[in-house]
Amino acid sequence: MPDVPARPRVVIIGGGFGGITAASALKRANVDITLIDRTNHFIFQPLLYQVATAELAPSDITAPIRWILRSQRNTEVLMAEAREIDPERRVVRVDDDLRELPYDYLIVAPGSRHSYFGHDEWEPYAPGLKAIEDASEIRRRFLLAYEIAEKSENPKEREEYLTFVIVGGGPTGVELSGAIPFIAKKALVAEFRRVDTRRTRVVLVEAGPRILPSFPEDLAQHAARDLADLGVEIRVNSFVTKVERDGVWVGGEKIRARTAFWAAGNKASPLGKFLGAPLDSAGRVKVSDDLSVPGHPEVFAIGDLTTFQQDGRLVPWVAPAANQQGAFVAKSIIRDTRRQPRKKFHYFNKGDLATIGRSRAIADFGRVRFAGRLAWFLWLFVHIMYLVGFRNRIVVFIEWAYAYFTYQAGVRLITDVERYKPPAQPPTVAGTTGR
Amino acid sequence: MPDVPARPRVVIIGGGFGGITAASALKRANVDITLIDRTNHFIFQPLLYQVATAELAPSDITAPIRWILRSQRNTEVLMAEAREIDPERRVVRVDDDLRELPYDYLIVAPGSRHSYFGHDEWEPYAPGLKAIEDASEIRRRFLLAYEIAEKSENPKEREEYLTFVIVGGGPTGVELSGAIPFIAKKALVAEFRRVDTRRTRVVLVEAGPRILPSFPEDLAQHAARDLADLGVEIRVNSFVTKVERDGVWVGGEKIRARTAFWAAGNKASPLGKFLGAPLDSAGRVKVSDDLSVPGHPEVFAIGDLTTFQQDGRLVPWVAPAANQQGAFVAKSIIRDTRRQPRKKFHYFNKGDLATIGRSRAIADFGRVRFAGRLAWFLWLFVHIMYLVGFRNRIVVFIEWAYAYFTYQAGVRLITDVERYKPPAQPPTVAGTTGR
Repeated sequence: MPDVPARPRVVIIGGGFGGITAASALKRANVDITLIDRTNHFIFQPLLYQVATAELAPSDITAPIRWILRSQRNTEVLMAEAREIDPERRVVRVDDDLRELPYDYLIVAPGSRHSYFGHDEWEPYAPGLKAIEDASEIRRRFLLAYEIAEKSENPKEREEYLTFVIVGGGPTGVELSGAIPFIAKKALVAEFRRVDTRRTRVVLVEAGPRILPSFPEDLAQHAARDLADLGVEIRVNSFVTKVERDGVWVGGEKIRARTAFWAAGNKASPLGKFLGAPLDSAGRVKVSDDLSVPGHPEVFAIGDLTTFQQDGRLVPWVAPAANQQGAFVAKSIIRDTRRQPRKKFHYFNKGDLATIGRSRAIADFGRVRFAGRLAWFLWLFVHIMYLVGFRNRIVVFIEWAYAYFTYQAGVRLITDVERYKPPAQPPTVAGTTGR
Repeated sequence: MPDVPARPRVVIIGGGFGGITAASALKRANVDITLIDRTNHFIFQPLLYQVATAELAPSDITAPIRWILRSQRNTEVLMAEAREIDPERRVVRVDDDLRELPYDYLIVAPGSRHSYFGHDEWEPYAPGLKAIEDASEIRRRFLLAYEIAEKSENPKEREEYLTFVIVGGGPTGVELSGAIPFIAKKALVAEFRRVDTRRTRVVLVEAGPRILPSFPEDLAQHAARDLADLGVEIRVNSFVTKVERDGVWVGGEKIRARTAFWAAGNKASPLGKFLGAPLDSAGRVKVSDDLSVPGHPEVFAIGDLTTFQQDGRLVPWVAPAANQQGAFVAKSIIRDTRRQPRKKFHYFNKGDLATIGRSRAIADFGRVRFAGRLAWFLWLFVHIMYLVGFRNRIVVFIEWAYAYFTYQAGVRLITDVERYKPPAQPPTVAGTTGR
């Protein structure tokens, strides 16, 4: 137990699932909380892909962090970016002026960004999906591809604009791949005169031997069949070797496409470096049994920033795990204030869901697992239930009902077009085949 | 009647009220239509200020133009920017490559932008409100002002961030001024710990002798009283002489404020210059009785691009006028194809509505005019009714009901924060007092 005052100051970095749950669980504790986040909003990550595919509006899956915590009088929220942590002096430095926020307890929950495995030069051609701005960028490229194809006089170019490559066969990649064909073939088809949007081609590229590696093999196979039914081409055991403006190289083959999205890997926030603890190859902090940072019982790391072994398996980087970790570290702080010994964190897997296009999903509850329409209804119900705020629940429910009955995607808005400047092709590197 | 083929090609520039109505009215005509717009969406302008004040989402008041016109087999929509018009060769040139679109009839309905009356250097400090991106910019500044104030250690700076100056006392300026105090005092107050959002100061600056000059004087006075009740300071007969990063100069006085919005004037699209017709000082085309461009019976100009005298008064630049003009020019084209003589355009004023905050509005139907809650209900009803698409109607209805009962603003999302870089103060010009 660290040496802390009677009413400790708790600083929480990050207003995602872990940080918000930790703050909420400390509502009645004898502490003063400052939660900081770079943005003003919590994001319901599991539905972010629906913002990217124009099915939901950004405001449907977000809520202001200070609104969520408005009734906690012991909590203040600052929109600020944590730049540095000094665990010896117990301060967090924020923003450009590196203003110092002192803490007695620190909960570090900053999340992750996508990783290009040393090829950050691919990012302009294949954006990933973490923040609202990422979803807006993917939506812009997805919708603009059809607008540009409709204007193009060149059949080859037109075909390239109707081809989408999605890199990474985890839940995000599968959900993006499943959403695009449906929108292309149902929602858009009546509106274009020159291109046939039904000819949209979606290629899902996965480096491993199968998609959805976190799911049991039979469910993953079911999902792969569902994707194939939608016309998605799945390439497993396929490594991306280069991403260019007009295509993705998979081994020696170039899949010609003007639009690619990246869902292949994560790297933890750079804040992990300041904690003086061992990191894994993705920059994740190896935390102790009680999720504290080795040598610093007053500093906890949770969520995507951490790596934690339990029963020989890694705890997955999913929302329920972050929630459980947030609640656990809050309890540890409360136990500290009561001079009770801390416990060990234990992750309880409530089950896994993934959806594939319309009316299809897979559900994994250990021994009970199933796929199809029932799993899809369960998916709908769970996601509405866990959304934050009555407004968002009702609006998402209506968007989904509208989409279900009209086959439309309700948020087909392209803004900030001037930001869509496909960057010039970089010079061909010797030894590669170039374009 | 111009010399045109049996099935003429009609090009429409602009997918606002005028352009969309013209296209719709030509649905069954023996013509081929190409509608071009820089964006992919129609904007329901009368509610744009609610996007700016975080009450509605951008997708609630927009609809894809090609979705609106999807069932018109004689119509194609191209997302392209009209750059030049050559009325002699009858072509429109679009996009960077100046690709040529030939026409037999041209309907020019590109709308307007805001005008700083020769002081474009004020724009970075006082954005206007025309496009979705403008509304997002205003929303970003409005919400960020409170976030920055909450972080500030400087009481003077904090006060400047809680002060909003709105330049222009027309409907947009009045509606912005009326919305801000309510959100500040009701929705935000519980969420901030260091600033008291009830101390928000809103100053509405109008150059003329009264606000809402297009309304009868008694109704405008009523609106001014409603604004004053909300705490808005109204300055009439007040000319803005300078806009700076940290304040607005009104005559010799500087109103210290970190956020200012511009609703003071419009200038027409620069496309008017290509039509060879006389322009007024705001760049508007003086059109003939049938809304055609003098000397070019095959070219029509409508909406904000035009100036048109009727019974000694100018037709206002409002949505109903643009709609009537769009429908009228469509009918003129149909009459041409039937070898019938054209008619003269006549604007029918259906009445005017404006809302002031929550539960208050004014309604002007010529001899019948009233203010208060009934006018507000009428305003709600009319705006829901005229929205495009069932989805938008139902979502806006829910957003409004939610806001009414919870006193919340539902879309308090700040994105693209890196775009909020208050520009450095320009060097003081000799002869002014500077900052």
